Amino acid sequence: MLIQDAMQPVALSKAYLLLNHGPVTLVSSAHNGRRNVMAAAWAMPLDFSPAKIAVVIDRQSFTRTLLEAEGHFALNIPCQAQGAMVLDVGSCSGRDEDKFARLGLACYEAQQVSAPLLEGCVGWLECRVRADSPWQHDLVLADVLAAWADAQVFQDGRWNFPDDASRTLHYVAGGQFFVTGSPCYPNGC
Amino acid sequence: MLIQDAMQPVALSKAYLLLNHGPVTLVSSAHNGRRNVMAAAWAMPLDFSPAKIAVVIDRQSFTRTLLEAEGHFALNIPCQAQGAMVLDVGSCSGRDEDKFARLGLACYEAQQVSAPLLEGCVGWLECRVRADSPWQHDLVLADVLAAWADAQVFQDGRWNFPDDASRTLHYVAGGQFFVTGSPCYPNGC
Repeated sequence: MLIQDAMQPVALSKAYLLLNHGPVTLVSSAHNGRRNVMAAAWAMPLDFSPAKIAVVIDRQSFTRTLLEAEGHFALNIPCQAQGAMVLDVGSCSGRDEDKFARLGLACYEAQQVSAPLLEGCVGWLECRVRADSPWQHDLVLADVLAAWADAQVFQDGRWNFPDDASRTLHYVAGGQFFVTGSPCYPNGC
Repeated sequence: MLIQDAMQPVALSKAYLLLNHGPVTLVSSAHNGRRNVMAAAWAMPLDFSPAKIAVVIDRQSFTRTLLEAEGHFALNIPCQAQGAMVLDVGSCSGRDEDKFARLGLACYEAQQVSAPLLEGCVGWLECRVRADSPWQHDLVLADVLAAWADAQVFQDGRWNFPDDASRTLHYVAGGQFFVTGSPCYPNGC
């Protein structure tokens, strides 16, 4: 499936806003006919412009194998409605079995990378692995090549959740998340 | 002031839990009689054990000057009651004026580092700068030497906010945060 109308492009200079509040992410990857998706709570923006991100991905993971071979991947930002799926993809390896088929995950095609973009997520960042990543720390640095958001949930550079199901998630541990809560303007709007 | 009774030590193997959900942080530093504090939204755990963290700190900042000279710093995790202060320390430089004096910020002494720990925060990580930090990206990697949490807010490795004022914050942009929301257990407790 191609990127649907509800997915609006996000300017690269605003891509950091998708990750700024620290949501959990799903890392999707593909190489040579194989594909995978894993959960990653340790992801953050690294620079505004040119847009860069940092994400910790274990060297033992199948995602890491695909990502290093392909040189690209995508960060998908899931919402509360997908909480059980995030736990599912985070608790098994895709080395032996395609998680998309096993869990019935639908995808969109990305624009700049081979990695699939997960349907139902509320934000997506298409990323290119940087050669100067500090691999000794399992830390992958990447340039953001394209960014997208669900237009119902993110408009004009701001998250604006229309309902609880569309709220982003923050991973704690042991199957627990926090949902992204209320906006707070300490000095007024 | 010494670390108060309400500040309970957090085992280093559980220190990542203070940052796992992606809260905004305050970076405090001190060197040779000078001190500073700045806001940093781009901070995350880097490893469980030994505990390490990653934080983006601009090379132009006074904090970076102090932190590189001293080799240590602290990450403080503020709560909603401190939202205005987080914006204040994030919108001025400490190079010309001591922010603690200007803003009336009280501190505790840390155990392992010279950086002050900010009173009223709900979590603290004492950190040692790693020599293998990818400085070209303004990315500081650090070993966690000690971790603390407000015992009213974080117990047994879990956040448990007794009221809205004690909830942690997630920075958006333009003076807006999201407050950490409700716990969510997609597969049940």
